Amino acid sequence: MTRIKMTFGYDGTEFAGYQVQPNQRTVQAELDAALSNVFSKQVHTTASGRTDRGVHAVHQVAHFDIQTSVPVDKMPQIINAHLPDDISITAIEVVPEDFHARYDVREKTYCYVIDNQRYPRILHKRFAWHIPQILDIQAMVKASRYLIGEHDFTSFCSSKTEVQDKVRTIYDIGISAEDEIVRFYVKGNGFLYNMVRTIVGSLVEVGKGRESPEAIETILEAKDRTQGLPTAPPQGLILWNILY
Amino acid sequence: MTRIKMTFGYDGTEFAGYQVQPNQRTVQAELDAALSNVFSKQVHTTASGRTDRGVHAVHQVAHFDIQTSVPVDKMPQIINAHLPDDISITAIEVVPEDFHARYDVREKTYCYVIDNQRYPRILHKRFAWHIPQILDIQAMVKASRYLIGEHDFTSFCSSKTEVQDKVRTIYDIGISAEDEIVRFYVKGNGFLYNMVRTIVGSLVEVGKGRESPEAIETILEAKDRTQGLPTAPPQGLILWNILY
Repeated sequence: MTRIKMTFGYDGTEFAGYQVQPNQRTVQAELDAALSNVFSKQVHTTASGRTDRGVHAVHQVAHFDIQTSVPVDKMPQIINAHLPDDISITAIEVVPEDFHARYDVREKTYCYVIDNQRYPRILHKRFAWHIPQILDIQAMVKASRYLIGEHDFTSFCSSKTEVQDKVRTIYDIGISAEDEIVRFYVKGNGFLYNMVRTIVGSLVEVGKGRESPEAIETILEAKDRTQGLPTAPPQGLILWNILY
Repeated sequence: MTRIKMTFGYDGTEFAGYQVQPNQRTVQAELDAALSNVFSKQVHTTASGRTDRGVHAVHQVAHFDIQTSVPVDKMPQIINAHLPDDISITAIEVVPEDFHARYDVREKTYCYVIDNQRYPRILHKRFAWHIPQILDIQAMVKASRYLIGEHDFTSFCSSKTEVQDKVRTIYDIGISAEDEIVRFYVKGNGFLYNMVRTIVGSLVEVGKGRESPEAIETILEAKDRTQGLPTAPPQGLILWNILY
C-alpha cells in the first residue's frame, strides 16, 4: 500500500459541507466516489478537517492508501476527469505511510473576502460577503492585534463546539484592502468551530464603528460564547493553505 | 417619461446568452421581468449589444424609459432584490432622452482570462479558460500589435456574422500575466460576432508556438474566415467596460 497526499480545491456553494452526511451532496462523498471509481475499489479519504456548508477551499489536503499501477503524476488529471466541476485536484504526491492529513497539520490559513463596494459585484458574489458600508480598516487591524498569540477562544467559537480544550494559537491576521475588496488572512495552529467566521464578524463590527477595538480584548478575556457576536456568512470563507 | 441608463453585471454560466429567446433563460428576459415587476408595467431594455451563451459581464449598459416616483438612488437596491443572484445592478442614472445604449458607444473593453496553472484552480473555473501549457507572453504581445488600429476583421469573426461592414478599430490589446493568470484587455470601437474570442484563440496558438507572431498579420490581411482559427471558449470572456 502507498500513502497518497492529495491537495485540492472546491467551490462550496453547492455542497452541504465537507463531511459525508446521509442524503446530502458533500465534498468528501464526491471525492471518495471518484477515487473508488478510478481505482476500482472502495477508497476512504481523511482530510485536514471539515469545512461548513457553503465554505470554499483553494488548498485542502486529504490522505488515502492505495495499491495501484497508475503513475502518481498522471493521477490529478485522471481523478479530475471523474470529479464534478466544483472540485479540482491540484497536486498528488506519495508520502511516508505515517503521514496524517489531520494530525500532522502545523499551520492553517483561512482567507475571508468582503466585497466592500456599494452594490455586489458579479465576479465576487460566490466568494465574498457583500458589505456596502465603509469599513475602518485601521480600527480592524488594531482590534485584530488582541487575538494574535495563544488564547482561550471560547468567546469566538460556536456554542455547538464539542471539543473541551479551546486554547488555540493565532500566528497572524493580515488585513488588506484593495479595489474595495477587503481580505482577512487568518493563520493559526488550528481553529474551533466557526472561529474564523466569528473573528471576522466581530472585526467587521469594529470596522463599522459599532464596537471599539478594545472591546475585542474584553470579549476574548470573558471566555464566554454568549456575547452575541455576529458570525460572518460562509460564502466569504476560503480554506487557503495548510503547512505540514 | 425619463430615460434611465442602467449599468449591471452578470455571471453568464447559467444563461443562454444575453438576448431574449423563446423558452431559454436569458439576461435580457430576467432584466425586463424584474423591471416590469418593480414598476408594475411592461419595461423593455435596450443594451449596448448582446453577449453569447456563457459570456459574462462586469459592466454592461442598457437604457429604458419609465415614469415613476421611485428615486433614482434607491433603484439599484430595489431592482437587485427582484433579480436572480447571477445579475447585479451596479449603477443607475437619469440621462438625456436621446441617449442610446447601443448607438452611442464610443469604446468597449473586453477582458479574457486564462488560468495558466497546471490544474484548474477552483476560484477561476467559472471565469477562465484553463490552459496547462506554458504560453510565450512576449510572442503573444508581438502578435497582438498587428491587430491594433483600423482593419477589416473578416478573418477574425464567426462565419455567421451578418453585418456587411467588417472594418473595426482596435485601440489597444493589453496582455498581463501574474500568478499564472493571463489576462487580455481588448479595447475597440466595436466588435464583430466572436471577434474577441477568435483573437484570443489565435494569440494562444502563437503563445503555444504553433503559429509565429507574423502569421497573425498574414491571416488578418487574407480577410478570409475559413482560415480555421480556433475560437476561445466563452467562460473566459467578460464584457469589462463601456465608454459613451
